[in-house]
Amino acid sequence: MTFLFTQPILNITMPHFRLLFLACCLLLTATAARAARVDTLAIPSAAMHKTYRAAVVLPASYAKNKKVNYPVLYLLHGAWGHFGDWLNKTPDKQLLHRLADQYNLIIVNPEGETFSFYLNSPVSPDSQFETYLTQEIIQKIDQTYRTVADRKGRLIAGLSMGGHGALYLSARHPELYCAAGSMSGALDLTSLNRKLSPAEVAQRNKLWAPVLGSETDNPERFAANSVINLLPQLQRNGLPLIIDCGVDDGLIDINRELHRRLVYAHTPHDYTERPGTHTWEYWQTALPYQVLFLTNVLQANGTMVPH
Amino acid sequence: MTFLFTQPILNITMPHFRLLFLACCLLLTATAARAARVDTLAIPSAAMHKTYRAAVVLPASYAKNKKVNYPVLYLLHGAWGHFGDWLNKTPDKQLLHRLADQYNLIIVNPEGETFSFYLNSPVSPDSQFETYLTQEIIQKIDQTYRTVADRKGRLIAGLSMGGHGALYLSARHPELYCAAGSMSGALDLTSLNRKLSPAEVAQRNKLWAPVLGSETDNPERFAANSVINLLPQLQRNGLPLIIDCGVDDGLIDINRELHRRLVYAHTPHDYTERPGTHTWEYWQTALPYQVLFLTNVLQANGTMVPH
Amino acid sequence: MTFLFTQPILNITMPHFRLLFLACCLLLTATAARAARVDTLAIPSAAMHKTYRAAVVLPASYAKNKKVNYPVLYLLHGAWGHFGDWLNKTPDKQLLHRLADQYNLIIVNPEGETFSFYLNSPVSPDSQFETYLTQEIIQKIDQTYRTVADRKGRLIAGLSMGGHGALYLSARHPELYCAAGSMSGALDLTSLNRKLSPAEVAQRNKLWAPVLGSETDNPERFAANSVINLLPQLQRNGLPLIIDCGVDDGLIDINRELHRRLVYAHTPHDYTERPGTHTWEYWQTALPYQVLFLTNVLQANGTMVPH
Amino acid sequence: MTFLFTQPILNITMPHFRLLFLACCLLLTATAARAARVDTLAIPSAAMHKTYRAAVVLPASYAKNKKVNYPVLYLLHGAWGHFGDWLNKTPDKQLLHRLADQYNLIIVNPEGETFSFYLNSPVSPDSQFETYLTQEIIQKIDQTYRTVADRKGRLIAGLSMGGHGALYLSARHPELYCAAGSMSGALDLTSLNRKLSPAEVAQRNKLWAPVLGSETDNPERFAANSVINLLPQLQRNGLPLIIDCGVDDGLIDINRELHRRLVYAHTPHDYTERPGTHTWEYWQTALPYQVLFLTNVLQANGTMVPH
Repeated sequence: MTFLFTQPILNITMPHFRLLFLACCLLLTATAARAARVDTLAIPSAAMHKTYRAAVVLPASYAKNKKVNYPVLYLLHGAWGHFGDWLNKTPDKQLLHRLADQYNLIIVNPEGETFSFYLNSPVSPDSQFETYLTQEIIQKIDQTYRTVADRKGRLIAGLSMGGHGALYLSARHPELYCAAGSMSGALDLTSLNRKLSPAEVAQRNKLWAPVLGSETDNPERFAANSVINLLPQLQRNGLPLIIDCGVDDGLIDINRELHRRLVYAHTPHDYTERPGTHTWEYWQTALPYQVLFLTNVLQANGTMVPH
Repeated sequence: MTFLFTQPILNITMPHFRLLFLACCLLLTATAARAARVDTLAIPSAAMHKTYRAAVVLPASYAKNKKVNYPVLYLLHGAWGHFGDWLNKTPDKQLLHRLADQYNLIIVNPEGETFSFYLNSPVSPDSQFETYLTQEIIQKIDQTYRTVADRKGRLIAGLSMGGHGALYLSARHPELYCAAGSMSGALDLTSLNRKLSPAEVAQRNKLWAPVLGSETDNPERFAANSVINLLPQLQRNGLPLIIDCGVDDGLIDINRELHRRLVYAHTPHDYTERPGTHTWEYWQTALPYQVLFLTNVLQANGTMVPH
Repeated sequence: MTFLFTQPILNITMPHFRLLFLACCLLLTATAARAARVDTLAIPSAAMHKTYRAAVVLPASYAKNKKVNYPVLYLLHGAWGHFGDWLNKTPDKQLLHRLADQYNLIIVNPEGETFSFYLNSPVSPDSQFETYLTQEIIQKIDQTYRTVADRKGRLIAGLSMGGHGALYLSARHPELYCAAGSMSGALDLTSLNRKLSPAEVAQRNKLWAPVLGSETDNPERFAANSVINLLPQLQRNGLPLIIDCGVDDGLIDINRELHRRLVYAHTPHDYTERPGTHTWEYWQTALPYQVLFLTNVLQANGTMVPH
Repeated sequence: MTFLFTQPILNITMPHFRLLFLACCLLLTATAARAARVDTLAIPSAAMHKTYRAAVVLPASYAKNKKVNYPVLYLLHGAWGHFGDWLNKTPDKQLLHRLADQYNLIIVNPEGETFSFYLNSPVSPDSQFETYLTQEIIQKIDQTYRTVADRKGRLIAGLSMGGHGALYLSARHPELYCAAGSMSGALDLTSLNRKLSPAEVAQRNKLWAPVLGSETDNPERFAANSVINLLPQLQRNGLPLIIDCGVDDGLIDINRELHRRLVYAHTPHDYTERPGTHTWEYWQTALPYQVLFLTNVLQANGTMVPH
């Protein structure tokens, strides 16, 4: 059994919404009549015997165009985060609403827990997020909403751990998504190019233990699940990819390395470096470029909903 | 005396406009009522004793908001091109109209002749495009239209030779522009990293002769006017910059080199590599990202016209 | 049965040897009494049912130090080449003699045929050069000469196809060699980053057919046998490696890519770029640096023969 | 008046010398009869009104070949160092002796003080090391020893601050040297790419104050004297250059940047990255490769002294 709350969620009640809206110096037109709606949806996982919530941003037009199927962007959060982050933590709280309206896009924010890395853990039966994301959530969303229930209308993107998730899941399930995006992606799970203090290493080991076990004992697991080592799949799939990272982000070397390997492999992708580091200001800046890229793929697929 | 043709120009008459509009699978809302208007404006140059035309795209709202000043994007064409290229050569002939409407932006397409590189030539008094662009055109536009007649509302971008022009002019006149963009920019005027056939070298020499003279005799002129060597100015100005290039473009090595030098100099800039080469398909893809970047600067400056 | 010709070979008879020697402006001391000797040795291959020759350069001291075991450098030739190339094609015909004397090193020049790439071909039983190099030749050399018959005294290096061979064989047989070197190595067997004309592609396909079959039909074979994809082995082995390439060599991008991947993987190696292209002048310049590097490893292993 | 001490110096007395010699597992032949001699020479500076010492390593053959002029390598020390460092601080105390003998080379180790950077300071009249190195020391050496008193027989190299010195002095005085080498060079004097703690910044500012003044007040001085910005001179001179750095050295990014800029400018140079960091073990490893490179230039110039 699942729960569907159709009222606006995430402590953004309607009056606040308007105030915020007026307060913001908005980039694009948005009137109250056109404002996106946000659902909080409970999505059970048979694989994990648990129910997590997801936030679903529906464009304003969704309610009116009763016969139209909408494309869906799955937008993943980072480590130490949860499903509501993209709605709660960007400085501009209307960013997702506006993008949903602007591109007539359903934006689903699924739960990835604090440190799942969107993998099926070989050590913890209750951490099976690859199955959850690629099977259970997609089925639930396609049953609940009028979606383009096909890879041609399905996008996936994310930040940091979620950037890994977007590239990892789409590389392994190219039949599910038509394009993927990574912002400041944690694209190498090994400790190889992370400059960490001993305290950070200890914390890191503790967090990884219930997901992939000990890196010392299972180095091949960490390598095999890293996007940086999925080049053969990325090359074979040829999925449109957009990858960005801030030049002062601790993950920049890893992102540069993936870019070089993709260039070397003649694998098409957009790659951007811009000012900034691992912050919500950066991701707020990055997301509109990612959505522009991803919806261009929808456009080419003929799955965009015209205004 | 100057001429102002306020009717839509460039062989796009109103009925065709609508047909095209309906035919296109449009990315964003545009109703007939909101459609941008294109002027062809004659802009005389006292410096060159000549009059060239420019195409000016006015957003649909311009006619209604009689008391509002609009920001202006100067959009430069490439070598062997002319002022109408951006309107005539992109596969989607409504690209500029739509961007003008979407961002409430005046887009000016000035003339740069087939091979001026937007410089003041030390050898030809009738090739003084730096003066034309930075003084004569700006004055004319600010007199003719309700513009934000200040650097805070003035943007410059271009492709190939025009990418050079945008970075070159803004590096030397940071008091005029608040942000600049280069697409597939020809950012090194020397022959150093151009892999040219003997026939191409001969043609190149012929084209450069009336602009900078002979490269053999004046190597320092070619180096001194190259964006790749303007790092001190770029670093000092700190102007927001966006630079992109296709990975299969013959100019990619030059663009990569500028990116690295900017990273080394900790000079903020957005840098993107994406699939593609030196074609209008590439530039049609690139422009919306550039305009998103450039208008973010307007947004921060408070010079955007709200919808 | 094998043949051993102990007289100086390769059309360098003793009188010519001395004349050449005096004519050369020699880098280092070498008197007639200390001059290296060159054997031509027939080395049968049971795997291939054939006998190939090898040129063996013995340092002058070898004949005197009757109780001393000498380290061995296996020095591989390039495509379209043969075992005598390193002695016949360097501008300075005494290069190997002098290096053998200077470092008290036996230098073995084995046969690798025109296009074997030192692999065991899955399609041609008579092209089994991995077995020949790593088993049959080593056994024969260790039986014929007083060698350090152990990885601690065994080195491998080569140019172009032989640079591939040296890194490929040592990556797969780290128990046999203590260090390896590649000069201008053809480190990627795929056509991915080779800018070839249609005629060159046709020739290339013809040459590869009897070694790895058709690249179109067996892309994974070409990838799996490329050094550029042996990073996990190189990383695991941690063998001292020296890799160089000329900046104007068509293989420079491939060598740069391997260098970056090794840096990314924190895998120790020396990497050099220097002026030059795919020529014997380049390799004559490169070899002394490689031998300096390789014999430093012998020095650390205690397998150098002191003067 | 100057002082010349012809006995072996630097607390290496003759008996110790032999013991060390026998104890080392030596790479190359050296008998007591062939051992290099080390002078300590007082070299006055009229420019600075001071006298500093230099250590001069003379090859064993120098005393016998009374009519032969020898080429000279000027070998510079690093910051916080002095003229005796290269003789005292390498793990192998016979390194310079052996190289002098092996290549028949006079090796001069001049004084550069703890933090002069081999510049003529615009703020301290008593820190004029460019004049000292390029005029006073060369004159003294050419007067005192039988040298090839010409650029064709004069080399310059150094480590860290001395790597800067070698490239800086040779770039500005190409008429004096025929080749130059930098090991782990501090090739950018600005603080731009140095990741320094506040304490390190304070110390750095204190050290620079008497040399170039305050970086905050005179940023252009720091930039103008940095090798990284001397590309036009390096490009114009075309002097053979060898540049290396350890991959774990804090200066690696700066060295990589110079390498890329030289490649971009098609300026010939050898560039090596190898394992290691800013230590004497690294420099002991690096020096023989540098001397091999530098003496190849002598060889081509016809200024090598044959054995």
